[in-house]
Amino acid sequence: MANTFGQLFRTTTWGESHGDAIGVIVDGCPPQMKLDVQDIQKELDRRRPGQSEISTQRKEGDQAEILSGIFEGKTLGTPIMIGVWNRDAKSKDYDHMKDKYRPSHADYSYDAKYGIRNWKGGGRASARETIGRVASGAIAKKFLFQEFGLEIVAYVKQIWEIQANIDIDVVTQDDVESNIVRCPDQDIAIRMIERIKEARKDGDSLGGIVECVARNVPPGLGEPVFDKLEADLAKAVLSLPACKGFEVGSGFGGVVLTGSQHNDAFYSEDSRIRTKTNNSGGIQGGISNGENIIIRAAFKPTATIMKSQESVDVNGNPITIEGRGRHDPCVLPRAVPIVESMMALVLADHALRHRGQTGT
Amino acid sequence: MANTFGQLFRTTTWGESHGDAIGVIVDGCPPQMKLDVQDIQKELDRRRPGQSEISTQRKEGDQAEILSGIFEGKTLGTPIMIGVWNRDAKSKDYDHMKDKYRPSHADYSYDAKYGIRNWKGGGRASARETIGRVASGAIAKKFLFQEFGLEIVAYVKQIWEIQANIDIDVVTQDDVESNIVRCPDQDIAIRMIERIKEARKDGDSLGGIVECVARNVPPGLGEPVFDKLEADLAKAVLSLPACKGFEVGSGFGGVVLTGSQHNDAFYSEDSRIRTKTNNSGGIQGGISNGENIIIRAAFKPTATIMKSQESVDVNGNPITIEGRGRHDPCVLPRAVPIVESMMALVLADHALRHRGQTGT
Amino acid sequence: MANTFGQLFRTTTWGESHGDAIGVIVDGCPPQMKLDVQDIQKELDRRRPGQSEISTQRKEGDQAEILSGIFEGKTLGTPIMIGVWNRDAKSKDYDHMKDKYRPSHADYSYDAKYGIRNWKGGGRASARETIGRVASGAIAKKFLFQEFGLEIVAYVKQIWEIQANIDIDVVTQDDVESNIVRCPDQDIAIRMIERIKEARKDGDSLGGIVECVARNVPPGLGEPVFDKLEADLAKAVLSLPACKGFEVGSGFGGVVLTGSQHNDAFYSEDSRIRTKTNNSGGIQGGISNGENIIIRAAFKPTATIMKSQESVDVNGNPITIEGRGRHDPCVLPRAVPIVESMMALVLADHALRHRGQTGT
Amino acid sequence: MANTFGQLFRTTTWGESHGDAIGVIVDGCPPQMKLDVQDIQKELDRRRPGQSEISTQRKEGDQAEILSGIFEGKTLGTPIMIGVWNRDAKSKDYDHMKDKYRPSHADYSYDAKYGIRNWKGGGRASARETIGRVASGAIAKKFLFQEFGLEIVAYVKQIWEIQANIDIDVVTQDDVESNIVRCPDQDIAIRMIERIKEARKDGDSLGGIVECVARNVPPGLGEPVFDKLEADLAKAVLSLPACKGFEVGSGFGGVVLTGSQHNDAFYSEDSRIRTKTNNSGGIQGGISNGENIIIRAAFKPTATIMKSQESVDVNGNPITIEGRGRHDPCVLPRAVPIVESMMALVLADHALRHRGQTGT
Repeated sequence: MANTFGQLFRTTTWGESHGDAIGVIVDGCPPQMKLDVQDIQKELDRRRPGQSEISTQRKEGDQAEILSGIFEGKTLGTPIMIGVWNRDAKSKDYDHMKDKYRPSHADYSYDAKYGIRNWKGGGRASARETIGRVASGAIAKKFLFQEFGLEIVAYVKQIWEIQANIDIDVVTQDDVESNIVRCPDQDIAIRMIERIKEARKDGDSLGGIVECVARNVPPGLGEPVFDKLEADLAKAVLSLPACKGFEVGSGFGGVVLTGSQHNDAFYSEDSRIRTKTNNSGGIQGGISNGENIIIRAAFKPTATIMKSQESVDVNGNPITIEGRGRHDPCVLPRAVPIVESMMALVLADHALRHRGQTGT
Repeated sequence: MANTFGQLFRTTTWGESHGDAIGVIVDGCPPQMKLDVQDIQKELDRRRPGQSEISTQRKEGDQAEILSGIFEGKTLGTPIMIGVWNRDAKSKDYDHMKDKYRPSHADYSYDAKYGIRNWKGGGRASARETIGRVASGAIAKKFLFQEFGLEIVAYVKQIWEIQANIDIDVVTQDDVESNIVRCPDQDIAIRMIERIKEARKDGDSLGGIVECVARNVPPGLGEPVFDKLEADLAKAVLSLPACKGFEVGSGFGGVVLTGSQHNDAFYSEDSRIRTKTNNSGGIQGGISNGENIIIRAAFKPTATIMKSQESVDVNGNPITIEGRGRHDPCVLPRAVPIVESMMALVLADHALRHRGQTGT
Repeated sequence: MANTFGQLFRTTTWGESHGDAIGVIVDGCPPQMKLDVQDIQKELDRRRPGQSEISTQRKEGDQAEILSGIFEGKTLGTPIMIGVWNRDAKSKDYDHMKDKYRPSHADYSYDAKYGIRNWKGGGRASARETIGRVASGAIAKKFLFQEFGLEIVAYVKQIWEIQANIDIDVVTQDDVESNIVRCPDQDIAIRMIERIKEARKDGDSLGGIVECVARNVPPGLGEPVFDKLEADLAKAVLSLPACKGFEVGSGFGGVVLTGSQHNDAFYSEDSRIRTKTNNSGGIQGGISNGENIIIRAAFKPTATIMKSQESVDVNGNPITIEGRGRHDPCVLPRAVPIVESMMALVLADHALRHRGQTGT
Repeated sequence: MANTFGQLFRTTTWGESHGDAIGVIVDGCPPQMKLDVQDIQKELDRRRPGQSEISTQRKEGDQAEILSGIFEGKTLGTPIMIGVWNRDAKSKDYDHMKDKYRPSHADYSYDAKYGIRNWKGGGRASARETIGRVASGAIAKKFLFQEFGLEIVAYVKQIWEIQANIDIDVVTQDDVESNIVRCPDQDIAIRMIERIKEARKDGDSLGGIVECVARNVPPGLGEPVFDKLEADLAKAVLSLPACKGFEVGSGFGGVVLTGSQHNDAFYSEDSRIRTKTNNSGGIQGGISNGENIIIRAAFKPTATIMKSQESVDVNGNPITIEGRGRHDPCVLPRAVPIVESMMALVLADHALRHRGQTGT
């Protein structure tokens, strides 16, 4: 289901970056849950471009409207339709992009697949599509918190070669929001901000890693063998623009440990079975074990840069593409609420599925 | 769909490691394709334990039987059912495992989810479940090769800290099969084999990385925004037992590049649009661009070791688990055909979906 | 997928009758197809209340807006979002309906399921939801006609006890649109219209049967064993409000024939294999055989009447419900484009799926 | 998902009538449910040919084997694989059928779709495929009874023109099983049996209607707008071989009533909201209302008859097909457990989905 994610808690996004509007349908959300447009807007505001001096300076208002599925402030259990109008999209001149394939954008591959594309912008490949995901994720997060006290916190773990040191068990969203790069290691954050400013000056861009933790996850979520919890998390994360890698728990670093170093010993605490270490990242055999779920997403540097680049036009003729307008030197700070949202969509869906199959 | 993977080319696996049998239904395979049990058996033989001195010494025959979907040597377009009988499973004594939670196995999480598990072995969490995937993958590989000349080659890229150097554009399956560790870098392979033997002697286990390439991939495969090709590949790979990480193209390594270093410049060659570098890993915007698709899967060291470990029983009481019987010090060589299979399942499904939506 | 229909050609409707808006996402539509809002509007106009003296006198403009998925007059292959604003919905006073369960409406069952409902109207159970289906169906019909010359014609076959006699092989949409009851048997149409006027005068309502034919259907559509073509048609039709029965080909009438009377003999015509009779209704073994597909849908009389009725309130206390406002004495004429749409959605989806699996 | 039915309680059938075996995977069955092969066998015995003098005289043992998903007599929550070996299938000579299209069978349409078919029998189009459905249905029925005390009773309502009169609120399975035609109206049953014997003597076949009731259905099952309970029931029933029509509640008969006659008045009984009549058939707005669910399935006379018939061969040349071997003059008695199974599959799936979305 190309534009739909989830089986019981289902998210369908729609809209091109330079069409009239963009949005999402959330189908399967439990009924009788209090929901206000502000619950959604506050997360869209975290995702919005132009929040700080290190982000793109494009200003997008991104005001959400809820068009269905809510009655007297509560969810009906029917599809929740949320739209955001692309107010500024039409005023600009994009004719120079019409015949060009921008390097490491999706211009060529969309043409190869569909034989047509909205060349006025990234279309569905634009990061603007994630508006719908963040809106749906805001609802999923609210459900998970109400139902289980489950909380999800993501932050920037690495920008370029600059890596932060963060205590994943205690970091809060307030810590994350305390600086504009959304890295709760304050000293490292300063270095990251400097490096991003430098990249902007160079007309270049930077990638990095977002780490995300879910705490108070009930044991039992995940459906082996194909819908293992980590498999759906990996899909969720790799479906994001610019994402090139995913890890859970020990991840790639775990391959240099031996089994005796890597195994998480069980112990008992307050009549709950726990593990002393958490190399498993809160998931064993595809099912949550009640420990914190820890994932990491690697984002490549964004493709839009202000340097001139070699490329071809739609006929294969060599061209040079010049940087033009404004660019976002590093999307990582804005990716933080997006990764949280994807984690929330997976957990909410699996919570409903688990309840469906087992009654618990 | 917990035990089903794919939308048009659908794989449903069934069976516990210590039940009567294990197998797969392949539903949606194109009709009129020549298919023989030998096409499947040859891949099962690559997956089978006991192939070499560095693998587990358990002998499992793993003889496939095709019970439906084939007529006079060709696929009917109806469900292909393939079963493998667990001939030896029942003879052993597993009573000592009944009440114990083995560290970093799925014993506890299965109990937490279902309130019941087949304690005689790993059940569905056993790597034995991948028999069904490899059988289905053999069919998918055959379809992809016949339809597009598409070939998939995987190999061991890293064991523990020992990393191979392999030319991904030219490596062949013969190169891979030329040694027992399935690493086509012959010098490194010798070191890997030594290290695995050492681990076996220690009663310990090792993890590593499998790299996999698909060549001659038609442009246009993948369905944004949620069923992007890399998203489905990530899900496929992370659904494998012991897998903790996934990368496509530049992966985690790409985060230390700048945009101007990472972008893949387009050029034209023989009236085909190509990229000079392939940091994208053959996928842009979730859609194949015709370059080689390159993925990597990180496997943790296997949980079964011969050392004694602390744990708890089902009531939470502390216990010590002693190593017993035989163990597989490193599953990486056997994971090679499994990763190839998962790549094939994703590509076959997306080839059919692309043909469905666009007629090409 | 509660609010989504189809696997490759997917229709997701959203919106309550008395919310802000109502609409549909069409996901998976083939790219590069010419599509204009007028293609959709002309079908919505056939569905709209207030078209004639025998329909409800509520006036609903039902102006469609396409918000995504189209670029320069052509489909992009991405989700097509179509919305219709409920311009008048909010001005009325519905407080008297708040606590009442109207007989044979969905008020009680929605409360039983969700514990909440939008009591200002039928919500999702309102026939207004079919706006989205008709919009999507308009696209599916256009695709089917362009691709195969396939045409779909529905009409009113029966109102109450008054049954028409129609030659299903030649009836055209012009014939159907030639009178306000959409029954191409002109004499019977006059009697139907009289009977509906009488029912309106009585404050009562009438049911009936819509028959629908698809011509120029390619052989091979339908996916046994569960997604047989007639199975998906039955689901499509029974998902409509007020529908209580479905038939294909001989239907219930076929049970009084013997096998030798019912069997459709094959013969050859212009190197095409055909059947002399068509009791099968164009489908054999769940797969189209190239003959006309013929289905019938039974609609009960609508639940809203102007007579007083016994019922209960939400607390179970007995109440009397009085007729109030305007009612639609017979929805059958407006159901005609809706049934056509559902037929189109099923055939378009199966055309894409067939092309996907078999390449034809 | 061609061969899979259901979203949380999923049934995947496999096997051709003349292949090695036939069977089913039941995926998503709740864990910890007691299940014995005898629970399944007793229902297969009701479906089996050769039970009585009015059925086909082919003897098929149809012994079920459970190959996975059960441990120590209880469901594991993992896929339950059930197989039945086609012990006699291979011994016969079917060469005379190789090039012939039998009237009103699926021979031609399967060839049109797949370009290949197993001409030794009906393949997937054979009623033998329903073995898997009945096996899965037996599990679903057991779950529904344990969970809700829900019971499902089907019976033969009509054979040819002979119609029974049955009190749907009280009829029991013992009543149904009290005669070989499975019609609990004893006088009518005698006439039906006579008529079937006559048809067999004539080498002809008869159709009829199976009616099915579900009692003690919890209110709230069904997922508008596309997965309305009646929509999924209609799909389930129309996916059966030889089925041509479906009704719920008043069905086609309801079209001759007026709204005031058809509406089901609500009243209160023992603090439960009920309806005085049940024209709705226990479903309103696509959701169960707690009243009995009542459906009817129309089956055409079976296509296999012993009379000579005109047809064509695979090249379109005219041929005459002679009756040969044994035939089943009326499948209705054997269809009874099959219709019950389909009702059970729909209700079990919706019970799990409802629990998933709403927690109740």
